[in-house]
Parts: sequence; structure tokens; C-alpha cells
Amino acid sequence: MSSSFGLQVEMTIFGESHGPAIGVVLNNLPAGEPISEEGIAEQLARRAPGQDPTSTARKEPDVCRILSGMKNGVTTGAPLCAVIQNTDTRSGDYANIALCPRPSHADYAAHLRYKGCNDISGSGHFSGRLTAPLVIAGSICRQFLLRRGVHIGGHVLQIGGVQDEAFDPVSVSAEQLDQLAKTYFSTLSPHANRRMRSEIEAARMDMDSVGGLVELAAVGLPAGIGSPMFGGVENILAGALYGVPAVKGVSFGAGFAYGSMRGSAANDCYTLDEAGNIRTETNNCGGITGGITTGMPLLVQAALKPTPSIGKPQQTVNLDTMENTVLQIKGRHDPCIVPRALPALEAALAVGLMQLMAEGGKL
Amino acid sequence: MSSSFGLQVEMTIFGESHGPAIGVVLNNLPAGEPISEEGIAEQLARRAPGQDPTSTARKEPDVCRILSGMKNGVTTGAPLCAVIQNTDTRSGDYANIALCPRPSHADYAAHLRYKGCNDISGSGHFSGRLTAPLVIAGSICRQFLLRRGVHIGGHVLQIGGVQDEAFDPVSVSAEQLDQLAKTYFSTLSPHANRRMRSEIEAARMDMDSVGGLVELAAVGLPAGIGSPMFGGVENILAGALYGVPAVKGVSFGAGFAYGSMRGSAANDCYTLDEAGNIRTETNNCGGITGGITTGMPLLVQAALKPTPSIGKPQQTVNLDTMENTVLQIKGRHDPCIVPRALPALEAALAVGLMQLMAEGGKL
Amino acid sequence: MSSSFGLQVEMTIFGESHGPAIGVVLNNLPAGEPISEEGIAEQLARRAPGQDPTSTARKEPDVCRILSGMKNGVTTGAPLCAVIQNTDTRSGDYANIALCPRPSHADYAAHLRYKGCNDISGSGHFSGRLTAPLVIAGSICRQFLLRRGVHIGGHVLQIGGVQDEAFDPVSVSAEQLDQLAKTYFSTLSPHANRRMRSEIEAARMDMDSVGGLVELAAVGLPAGIGSPMFGGVENILAGALYGVPAVKGVSFGAGFAYGSMRGSAANDCYTLDEAGNIRTETNNCGGITGGITTGMPLLVQAALKPTPSIGKPQQTVNLDTMENTVLQIKGRHDPCIVPRALPALEAALAVGLMQLMAEGGKL
Amino acid sequence: MSSSFGLQVEMTIFGESHGPAIGVVLNNLPAGEPISEEGIAEQLARRAPGQDPTSTARKEPDVCRILSGMKNGVTTGAPLCAVIQNTDTRSGDYANIALCPRPSHADYAAHLRYKGCNDISGSGHFSGRLTAPLVIAGSICRQFLLRRGVHIGGHVLQIGGVQDEAFDPVSVSAEQLDQLAKTYFSTLSPHANRRMRSEIEAARMDMDSVGGLVELAAVGLPAGIGSPMFGGVENILAGALYGVPAVKGVSFGAGFAYGSMRGSAANDCYTLDEAGNIRTETNNCGGITGGITTGMPLLVQAALKPTPSIGKPQQTVNLDTMENTVLQIKGRHDPCIVPRALPALEAALAVGLMQLMAEGGKL
Repeated sequence: MSSSFGLQVEMTIFGESHGPAIGVVLNNLPAGEPISEEGIAEQLARRAPGQDPTSTARKEPDVCRILSGMKNGVTTGAPLCAVIQNTDTRSGDYANIALCPRPSHADYAAHLRYKGCNDISGSGHFSGRLTAPLVIAGSICRQFLLRRGVHIGGHVLQIGGVQDEAFDPVSVSAEQLDQLAKTYFSTLSPHANRRMRSEIEAARMDMDSVGGLVELAAVGLPAGIGSPMFGGVENILAGALYGVPAVKGVSFGAGFAYGSMRGSAANDCYTLDEAGNIRTETNNCGGITGGITTGMPLLVQAALKPTPSIGKPQQTVNLDTMENTVLQIKGRHDPCIVPRALPALEAALAVGLMQLMAEGGKL
Repeated sequence: MSSSFGLQVEMTIFGESHGPAIGVVLNNLPAGEPISEEGIAEQLARRAPGQDPTSTARKEPDVCRILSGMKNGVTTGAPLCAVIQNTDTRSGDYANIALCPRPSHADYAAHLRYKGCNDISGSGHFSGRLTAPLVIAGSICRQFLLRRGVHIGGHVLQIGGVQDEAFDPVSVSAEQLDQLAKTYFSTLSPHANRRMRSEIEAARMDMDSVGGLVELAAVGLPAGIGSPMFGGVENILAGALYGVPAVKGVSFGAGFAYGSMRGSAANDCYTLDEAGNIRTETNNCGGITGGITTGMPLLVQAALKPTPSIGKPQQTVNLDTMENTVLQIKGRHDPCIVPRALPALEAALAVGLMQLMAEGGKL
Repeated sequence: MSSSFGLQVEMTIFGESHGPAIGVVLNNLPAGEPISEEGIAEQLARRAPGQDPTSTARKEPDVCRILSGMKNGVTTGAPLCAVIQNTDTRSGDYANIALCPRPSHADYAAHLRYKGCNDISGSGHFSGRLTAPLVIAGSICRQFLLRRGVHIGGHVLQIGGVQDEAFDPVSVSAEQLDQLAKTYFSTLSPHANRRMRSEIEAARMDMDSVGGLVELAAVGLPAGIGSPMFGGVENILAGALYGVPAVKGVSFGAGFAYGSMRGSAANDCYTLDEAGNIRTETNNCGGITGGITTGMPLLVQAALKPTPSIGKPQQTVNLDTMENTVLQIKGRHDPCIVPRALPALEAALAVGLMQLMAEGGKL
Repeated sequence: MSSSFGLQVEMTIFGESHGPAIGVVLNNLPAGEPISEEGIAEQLARRAPGQDPTSTARKEPDVCRILSGMKNGVTTGAPLCAVIQNTDTRSGDYANIALCPRPSHADYAAHLRYKGCNDISGSGHFSGRLTAPLVIAGSICRQFLLRRGVHIGGHVLQIGGVQDEAFDPVSVSAEQLDQLAKTYFSTLSPHANRRMRSEIEAARMDMDSVGGLVELAAVGLPAGIGSPMFGGVENILAGALYGVPAVKGVSFGAGFAYGSMRGSAANDCYTLDEAGNIRTETNNCGGITGGITTGMPLLVQAALKPTPSIGKPQQTVNLDTMENTVLQIKGRHDPCIVPRALPALEAALAVGLMQLMAEGGKL
């Protein structure tokens, strides 16, 4: 299902960037659980545009209104629908894009898929704006998970040529994640953060954009959730994370570095900690073996391509005249989507983990 | 669902490594389509163990028997079930593993997940042996796809420190993929192949194992299949590929390299070819934008961890006495699973593409 | 999934009777198809309350607002969300019901299921009001189906002791169905209609309610859609029709009358019509054999229980004091839900057939 | 999906009547649960043909072999696959049916659906024989449910003109159901049983067949499982029961009799029993309100059409010559399928309840 995710806890996202509203339905949430609308607003604020020079100048109030599934501040058990009215839309900016697809954006593929009837304004349903309802859903799931001891957080691991430190895969802590999950453009190293901002500013000055990597973690997950083969933690989470536009790679633990490792170095040996609990000395597997959680921190990385909409002139084809042409994109676009994508990726992780917890009987 | 994949075309894999049989059910295949059992056998042979020193000494005949869904060589439209009887099983080898979980194998997580009742012999349902029914399903789907002009192939991109050349993302051809899809341990460069085999042999001599990367491609896919957000080509294919044990990373096109790229370099500009068809000059997006195919070659990479079962002594915990202990694994294990995993990954790709073609009304 | 239906075309209904809004998301609709909002309003009017003495005095404007998935009057292919704002709500009426569950209403079961947190006002998500978004979805699907030659209609077959004539299972026509589908409280016999209204009025005067039966038909369906066993037309349609509150029986063709029939009388013999097409002389099977359409008219009946909310005093238990008590329900309730349920059942049929058409590659 | 059922506990049935084998995969069963293969054999014996003059003379050993998912007599948590080898098949009997579809059988619809490639021998995947793997699955689920206090049983309620007594909807007991669930051709009244057998024998002597009704019950279900709208107990169970060939009607509690009832008579008033538990004085709703269990006995009825394969000559069309023709069916067919369908319907009920228990967190 295009814009749906999950079986036990099912999320459906709807809306187009410049349509009347965008929103999300969460089905099969447990009843009687408090939802903090302030908590939702806090997460929405992290992905809101216009907060600093690294992001687009668009202003979107992004007020989340819950239409159903909550009463007196707690879930009723009925499907929860939340919407955001769209306000600041300038559809005129998209007039030429309907004919001349932007390189590496969804325009051309969507044109074929939807027989030219997809809403092109603001990129329609393909807009990064659709991560706002995802953040709402993720924020709700995050609140459920926190009550069950599961903490989620992340940071920008790389922007262009600048790298942040990585999480310590064994000792990343709930406190550290909670702190990161409150901040816009989180990094572990303040120095890297400053250099990343310069990297983005440089791209912006060049009428260009730049890609990046994100690292996410979850601690407090019970051991023993997930399933082998196609129901594994990796399958479910990758299925959620690839739902965030621009993601082109997802890996767990040592990920692609496994390709050059020996088993003797890669294997995470079991040992007893002081409290007599089983832990692993290293955590290259990112807290997952055989598709099932080990109880160690869960670690996942995502790679995001540069924003395809750039100011530089680009070669494309006019779909009407079927001639090669040059496209110059105007309008307001993020020179780097990664800082704003971070809370969306955390949200996708939260929704994915919610699904896994439900499946594992842990909700 | 743990061992099921897909909605339109649904695959369910069953069996344990040392149980009576392993198999697969494929539901909702179109009726009236020929299936070549020889074609299935050819693909099973590519993943069979014991063919050269790089793989385990186990001998498995791996004869596929179709129990239903096929008559007179064509599909009937009813669910197709295929089984492989298990013959060469030495369950004694696994006696100590039930108590002392192997580092980075599924043993410990599965023990918790299944209350200690999972079949540990030969790793049970978590065994790489379960990729044999996946290869059957993939081989059937591959035959369906070939009739619709879709060619799938792949090669080992990296083993430890040795790298193969990568596919040319624009000009990888059907012929090249068909050739690769017939071979055991395919690489593009024969030189890299020799060095990879040495790398594996060195690991084996050290009672160790080694990981690697695989690159897969599909050409001939219609443009316009897939969907935004959670129904994207990336989501569906990652959900299939992570079903192959040991996969810890999946990326598309430029994948993690996107993290250090500028948009102006990363964007794939549209242009008309001589025949007047729209193509992209580069193909960093791996044939997918907005979760939808562009009609360019589809490119995907997977990272596999080293076989966790190694001969070297390793630290673990005895689950019965709850004491730290040292485990020495005997039995027959691949020093590198990557060459045998390659046809399983191609199979997962075929099953995933079959699902996407069905969804897109192209079956 | 509680309030979701379908795989290929997925419908999710949300909302509570006295909450801010109710609505529906339709996912995976084909792109580029016109939607008549007038057509939606026409169907909503058929289920609207307050149109005559047979229904409740509540006034609900029931204005359908489409938030996404439609632009310039045609579907975009993105999820379509439509909402109705709730306006006329008097939640005070439900104060005592939270403690004293109404006999045969969902109150008690829902209280257990949702730990007492379900919204009891206006019966919350269990309200017949939730059939309004179902009617929206059904009306949209009906428009898609009509363009493909499929006509849907129905009539009230029985109210209490009064029976309408039944459809002629062989010759029920598109024109007949189209006509019925425009009317409130459709029956085939005007005489039966008058007597049914009297039956309802008599129940109302007795502070009581009365049940009934509905018969639905669809003509123009292609032969050969549906599947054996659990994917059959009967399974899918029953799954949709039981989604309308108060439905307690669903049958196809001769239905329960089959129980007293001989095969020689029950079997529908094949014959060629004048145009050389295969038809059946009778149509006891209601247009379905082996779960698959035969191309003859599809016929289905549904049984609805009397409205549980009646004015007469009734025995119940106070959940707080855990004592037997007598409940007297105030508020506005339909003495017979059947006439207003008819368009909702037609809508459920339309959504079910849409799913079957999608599955069968006929959209 | 045609031959699959369920999400949490997923069942997929495969096989053709005269193919190599038929079988079933049950996915997501809890681990560590004993399975009695004797219990499976007992249920298979109830549906076996050839036990008395009321059923076909075919002999099928119907030996269930479990290929996976069970070790040392308990579930491993991996998908459980069970198969039955087909032995007594006489495919010659079906030569003319491929061309001349049997009235009211699936032949014609399946021919269109599967482009003439469906296996016609023994009716292929549409055969009543496919209820054998359903009985296996149901028997396994029944064993799981019994350990959780849920008892399932049923009886033949009607054959042609003969009716059995109905269950007492309030006081039907576990002991009564257990007793019925052990017997072939269960009825409540021995007298009705004798008359039903005569009715069937009379049909057989006339080279005809006869339809019937079945009533099923389950006691011991926890109150509060199920969901509103499309996830209701009725929706799920109807979806399962319509999977048994020949079922054309499914109703719950008072079912179609509700159509002529007043609310004051139909409503089930709540009261406290001696132990202080909430019960209803009547149980017209069949243990379900709002799609959710009330804790009272669950009651469901199914209507089955007469076996379509009868010895009498019948009108049909030759699909090759496209001429009207007369078909005389030879071969071995049940003059009444109802007694053998009873255990299959109980099995479908068990699988459906298993799904609902899983969803409700009661497994």
C-alpha cells in the first residue's frame, strides 16, 4: 500500500503539499494511553522549515489537530486521525515543472505512474512536507514507547565532506538520546555541527544542495522481538525508513563496513555484566541477530541524497514538445534536507518499533 | 508475518534446516504460465554447498518437487507449493549450541523469542538453508519476469579487502545480467574473482570467516511502477533483501555515497536518446525516484556480515549455568557466505520485483 | 484491522459520533478518474437522518470535504481523504450509558475492549453515524464501477412482519438498480413500502424498534473475478457488509433457502442466449460459484437487528456499583435503522466490488 | 489472497484434489505449544469420505505429515507446514467436465478466471478435498484454544426438510460441544439424525443431492475480543466460514430471524449471575455486540448448497463447440456434503477464533 505502513499498528498518511490539508490515521493504538499534544508540537517544530539559514524560507505553522481517537487526553482505541491545514502555498512556482521534470525528483516517474494527474504543486504527495504527518505519528508512538522504557534519538552523521562522531554502539544511553531528540540539527560533536552548517551554506551560495547521513539509535528495547526472514527488525525498519523521501540507503550496526571484516572481529561475544545480565562486548550487529532484538542498543544508519531541486540550470526534457531543454528551478528549497529529515527518520523508527512491539506482544 | 512476503504475489517459506523438508508456497501467480523445472534446478545449483573449497563440505541434493499449482508444465493459478526433502543432516553437531549461543548468530535472540523451543539443529528456521526455497520462488518469478522483458543479475562486489568493478549504472545490459545469472560466484573482473577466492581461503585457514558486498541489477523494468512513501520500490525490495540471512545493509544507486555528494553532481539529468526515448545521462538514483521506477537500470547493493560460525574459540555465556564460557564450534560452515548468498539475493530481488509488477498491473 | 478494509484498494474509516469530525481514507485509487461530489452528496442524503418520521430527529448537514487525492475534479492517485465535520451533538444524553450499558448495543463489550476509555458519546466509533464516511467511500467506488459498466442497487426486503418482493435473480436490470439507488427507503412494491412505514411507526409509538432485511444486487460485473477459499467474492463482500453496524446475517443467492433444496432444483444450468453468450437459466448461486463471478447478476441479502436503543425500560447492570438496575434511554434514535442502512450496505458492496475488480485486474 | 486467511496467525492452503499432495502452512503460531497428532487424525476422520452410505465411496487415507514447525511434539515458532499425499485419484472421471462445465460447480467461473489452465481433475483446488488441510489447521488451532478454555462444537441443523433442535443460546456447555466435536454427523436429536440420513439416502436414490444448515458454537471465549466495523468477530468469522466450499449464507445469533423482531424482544438484557458476573438473560446477538465478544456463547449458522455434482442429466454448454448439450456426471460424489462439511466449518471457526484471540492479545 503506497502510503500505509504496518499491520498491527497501521499508519496511513494522506495529503498533498499544496492541497487543503495533510494528515495521518493511526489504527489499532491501545486504548487509555495519554497523548501529549505538546510533545507532538515539539517534534513538529524540529522539522519545521524556516528556523535558520540552512533551511527553506517557507513558513508553515504546522498545527496538529486531532480529529478522532483521543478523548480527555487519552486514546479511545478508535482510529486516531490528525491533520495539519496547509496555509503558505505558492503554487505558481510549479508551473513549468509539470512539463519539464526536475532531475532526480519524482516528477517524471510520478507523471508516468499517475497518467499525468498527480498534483505537481509543491511536489504534491511526494513532497518532503508529507513527513509532517509522519512526525505526528512518530511522536505519538514515541510517547507510547517511552512509557515502555524505549528511548529513541539520532544525529546527523555526515553532511557532504564533514563527519560527526558515531554513537558508541555498546554504551549509547537513554539520556543521550532524549537530549538529542529535543534539538534541531543534532550532532554529537559541536565542532562538526558548525562545519556542517558551513558546508550547507556553501552549497546554498552555489545554488546547489548537499546530501548526508543520519545515525539513529533506540535503547531499552526488550530482547526477543522481531522475526526471521521477512518479518525481521531490519525488514520492518527499512520499510519504514525508506518512507522518508530522499533515503537511498539503510544499514544496521556495522552495516556496509561488515563487507571488509573477518568474523572473529565482527562477532559480538556474549558476556555477563555485573548484574548478571547477558550482554555483548561489542555491538556490530546493531542490536539485532536473526531479525530479532538482542536487548543491546539498536543502531541504524540512513543515507540521504542531496535535495534534487537546485537553482543551477539543469538539462531536462520538455514532455509536451519532447525536446531537450534547460530547467531553472525557482521557489524555496532546502539546500540540505538532512537536518529536517532527522526527526522524520526518528519518527519512522518509532512507528516501526511500535509495530514490532505490538507484534511481540509488548504493547 | 515472519516468513511471508508480499501481498499481490505472496510467498511463504517454511522448514527447518534438519527437519523433514523445507519449502515455499507462492500464492496468486497468474495462471497459464510455463515453469521450467530445469531453470529452477539451475538456480538451486548456484547456491548449493560443496561445489568448491570456498563453501561448506555438506552435500545437499536439493531436488525441488512441486506439489501443487502446476499442471502440464504451466501454472494452474492455485497456490504453488514446492518442497525439498532434507537428507544430509548431522544434528549432533549442534548439541552444545543449544546451551551456549554462538556470537552474532540468531541462537540467543531466537531462544528468547521462542521460549527455547526453536529448533536449534542446523540453526533450524534461521539457517541459510532456508534460502533454497527462496531461490525456488525467485527462479519462478525470474521466469515470469523474463517473459516480460525484465532481466536480473548480480555479482560479488567485495569480499574482505578485495573489490570487484561496479556495474555501469547507465549501460548495464540484459545480456551481461543473463550471463552473470548462470554462474557460481559471479564477478565482473576475473582478477578480482581470483583474489576473492584467496581471501576466503585465507579466512578458512585461519578458522575464521569474512564478509562481503553484493551488487544486483535489473534491466527492462517498465517506468512508472512502485509508489510513494511506504510502498516504494526501495521499501519493497529492502523488505525482500533483508530476508536473506546475514544482510545488514541495503542501498540503491549511489547509496551511501550520496552522503558526500552535491546535488549538481548527484542529479540525473533527463535527455532524449537517439530513438527519442527519455533517459537519464547518469543513474545515481539506481533507476528509482520517488519510490517509482524511471525505466533506467535498477541498481541495488547489499552488505553481508561474515558467517558467525567460526572455528576460533569465542567467548559466550552458558544459558543453563549462567556462567561465562568459551565456545568452540565444530561442524561444517562456509568461511564466506557471500558467493552462495548471491543467487538468494537475486531471488529476493525477483520476488520483490514480481510483487511490484503485480501491483503496477504489469503481470 | 478494525476499521480498515481491503488490500488493493484500502479504506480506513475514522471518527467518533460526537468528536470533531468523521472521515475516510481511500488508498490506491487509480489516478485520473473524475469524482462527482454531487454524486457523493446524493448518496449521503439517502442515509441522512431526519428526512421523515421513520428516522431520528437529529439534523446533520453531512457536508463531505475532500482533503486530498483529488485535483481539478479527478483523482491524483494519492490517498484520498474526505471528512465530515460533526455539528449537531448533544453529549449529555449519554451520561448514564457510560455506567449502565444498553442491552445489545456495543457499550459493554467496548468498555471491556477499550478499558473504559472508548468515547461513549453518541456511541463513539460504534455509532451508525460512521456509515456516513462509508457512504462517501462507496459513492466514489460506485462512480468508478459505473464507468466500468457495473451497476449497484438494493431495496428493503423486510421490516418486521412486512415483506417486499424479491429481485428477479436472472433479469434484474441496470436501469432498475440505478433507479433504486437514487431513492430513500427503496422497495420494489409501493404497497409493501407503505406497510413497512406503518410497521416502523407502530414500533416508534411503542417506544420500541424493529429489525429488517435488505437485498442488494450488482449487474454488469465481468465473469471470472474472485478467488477460491478465503479470497472468494462471498468472503470479501461479507467482510465488507458486516462492517455496517447491526448486520447479523449475510447470504448470497438462494442463501439459507439452499438448506431445504435438492441439487436438481438448486443447480443453475448453463445455456446460450440469443447473442451466443453463456448464461444460466436460474441464478440460485447469486452470480457466484467457487468464489468467482459467473457474469450473472450478483445477489446478496443482509439481516439487521432492531435498533438496540429503545425507549422502553430495560434491565441492565450498573458497572460502577455492580448492581442490577433499570435503564431508560432518552435521546434521539431511529425506531428502524434499515432504510438508512440500505445506502450504507450498497456502499459496502461497492467498496467490496472495487476491491475484487482491482484484484482481478479490471480497474 | 485466494487461499490465505488471517494476519496475526496466517493460514495458507495449497493443493489440488488429484495433484501430488495437499497441505497447509500456519504462520506465527506461538512457540512451545504441544500438538497432538492424534487429535488431528481424529478430526480428519470426521471429514473422511467413505464412512457410511451418506458419503462418497472414495477412500482417502488422509495421513497428515508435519514437515516443519514442530519438534519433540511442540511448536518451534517457525511456520508449520503439514501435508497429505493424494493417493486414490481417478482423473479419467473428469474428462468431459473440462469442456462441459457442471451447473453450479466452479468449473465455468474457474475456466474464465484461470484462462482454462486450472486443474479440473477432481475439481482441482476447488475440491471439497481442500477442506482436509483446513481441518488440520483447525484441529491445531482447536488444541491451542482448548488450553485457553475455549471449546468449539457444532451440529447439523437441517438437511432438506428435516430440522434438528437448535443450541440453547444461553446454556450451551463446553461438555456438550466437546462431545459433538468427536462425532461424525453430529445432531442434538437422535431422531432428527435418523430422518436426516433417510433424506440423504432418498436424494442418493434419485441421483440427486440435498443441501442443509449447520449450527456452530464456541464457549469460554473471553469478553472483549474483536473490533468495530471491518475487524469485527462477524467479519473475521464469515471470512473464514465462506472459505468452505458450498457455503452460501452465514449468520450470527438470531441471524435472519432478527428481520421480524422488535427491539424489546431482541435485546439481550444484562444481569448479574449468582457469582456476580455480568451475563445476558437471552443471547440473540450470539455472543457478539459491536463486533466484540460479550463473554456469552458464540453462535453462528451456515447454509450449504446441495452438492452440484448429481447423477441426473443436466443442461450445459460445450465450451469448445459453443453448443447447448446435456451433461451426465459419473464419478463418486456425496449426495449431501453437510455432515462432512461440519468438521471443516468447525475448523474454519477455530482458525478464525485463533486469529481473534491473537489480535486481542489472548494467545
